[in-house]
Amino acid sequence: MKLVRFGEKGAEKPGAIDSQGRIRDLSGVVADFTPDVLTIEMRDRLTALDLETLPVVGGNPRLGAPIARTGHFIAIGLNYVDHAKEAGQPIPAEPVIFSKAPSSLSGPDDDVILPRGSEKGDWEIELGFVMGRHCHYVAQSDALSAVFGYVLANDVSERAFQIEGTGQWIKGKSAPTFGPIGPWLVTPDEIPDPQDLDMSLDVNGERRQTGNTRTMIFPVAELIAYLSEKMDLEPGDLVITGTPPGVGLGMRPQQFLKPGDEMHLTMAKLGEQRQKVVAFRG
Amino acid sequence: MKLVRFGEKGAEKPGAIDSQGRIRDLSGVVADFTPDVLTIEMRDRLTALDLETLPVVGGNPRLGAPIARTGHFIAIGLNYVDHAKEAGQPIPAEPVIFSKAPSSLSGPDDDVILPRGSEKGDWEIELGFVMGRHCHYVAQSDALSAVFGYVLANDVSERAFQIEGTGQWIKGKSAPTFGPIGPWLVTPDEIPDPQDLDMSLDVNGERRQTGNTRTMIFPVAELIAYLSEKMDLEPGDLVITGTPPGVGLGMRPQQFLKPGDEMHLTMAKLGEQRQKVVAFRG
Repeated sequence: MKLVRFGEKGAEKPGAIDSQGRIRDLSGVVADFTPDVLTIEMRDRLTALDLETLPVVGGNPRLGAPIARTGHFIAIGLNYVDHAKEAGQPIPAEPVIFSKAPSSLSGPDDDVILPRGSEKGDWEIELGFVMGRHCHYVAQSDALSAVFGYVLANDVSERAFQIEGTGQWIKGKSAPTFGPIGPWLVTPDEIPDPQDLDMSLDVNGERRQTGNTRTMIFPVAELIAYLSEKMDLEPGDLVITGTPPGVGLGMRPQQFLKPGDEMHLTMAKLGEQRQKVVAFRG
Repeated sequence: MKLVRFGEKGAEKPGAIDSQGRIRDLSGVVADFTPDVLTIEMRDRLTALDLETLPVVGGNPRLGAPIARTGHFIAIGLNYVDHAKEAGQPIPAEPVIFSKAPSSLSGPDDDVILPRGSEKGDWEIELGFVMGRHCHYVAQSDALSAVFGYVLANDVSERAFQIEGTGQWIKGKSAPTFGPIGPWLVTPDEIPDPQDLDMSLDVNGERRQTGNTRTMIFPVAELIAYLSEKMDLEPGDLVITGTPPGVGLGMRPQQFLKPGDEMHLTMAKLGEQRQKVVAFRG
């Protein structure tokens, strides 16, 4: 099932995409996709629904991030060999974990706002997943059963904030609108193998990134098991899994986002995103 | 006002400490101290209450973390000159931001559980604060008015996970029980100056850390203003502000936590914590 949140920013309602591509209103079933309801039990209840019995949503509403909040927005760095090379970093022996501010979450087609002083905005297409169960020391063989769903993500970054200032990447990963996810949160019954998803990212119509999740260094099940050794994972935690090569930081010469740029992201089974880049005004 | 959460783990109720040191039950006023209620308006409503009219809580219940969850658990690194030196790091020109998993939050006197394979557990006494208002590009002069309250924190760390593995400190900062906070969340009316708080930390009765928040490199107001340039801050976000010298990593020879150790933390106006160190079993 493809879950969505539709409506104006801050007033989104939960929905699902039916067999004809229309949005069905789920607000009679669940108030919103907040972390407290993002459980395996809710997932299984939702996927058992007959969408044809639910109200069709008319018009062409904006889509928000398909989860209302996340309790923890975790990101994995350098998880594709060629991207580690282009970033001038060694191939990691263990997953590289960092995080983004939960307040960076954004809708799939919302504008990406460059913060004041930003000169090195960059793109990163990634597979994301949302946890549906508490995990601590979970085995790889049990890990995928704890996933609520999968989502397309753009791990927008400000490279100067991330790596040229004082330590720790979170600083360049957390501006508001730096976490577009969606359009859909897709339940695992539609994603038989999360390690075989083609993806692409264009900037202004030019292909920048092409990849497939099969070339990840640490696949999803291994990431969940590893993360669960370092921290408790909770329902609603969002993990994005690293990007294939082709980011602006790795281009020669380097190329960064400027106001007016347009990004277009696609991932097999997970849909597309289109974002316009704008400068912060305020 | 000194706000607490009392009761067994996972079933805590909100309360406040009255003039005689007894807990008054606030569960008739607010369901729990979740991020959605940690607003300046709620703070002001609570501090206006006449605690003497509220039920006294009998017995001597366990205290939990004084907030039920945090939307973002932010930490500041190397914010005291002498600690940066003992850690072998340069004095930062800008605040060093990292984060801890929100699931690491723990009660002030709960056991600290060393994860599997931990050989370098360490202590860090810190001043923490909880945000009560959305902040983006907030001025230093407005920053302190956005604080819901202050809290004593122990930024428990596993140094091998933090700095010997692959990148980014979050990995050694996030194990469950690595974020003891409390006993109280103290509203700013009781903390006229957050930059003049004495603190101390003992391990097994031996003094390890002594400090005062006046020697911070970046004081609270500056941290809020700086953080708000890099990310949106939201009500319920928790920020811990760095530790003075005296951590185990900085001792010669280095000294780390082992099962059976006892930590005792005190901070002026913010109370005390006592934690026993145990090994993970499971």
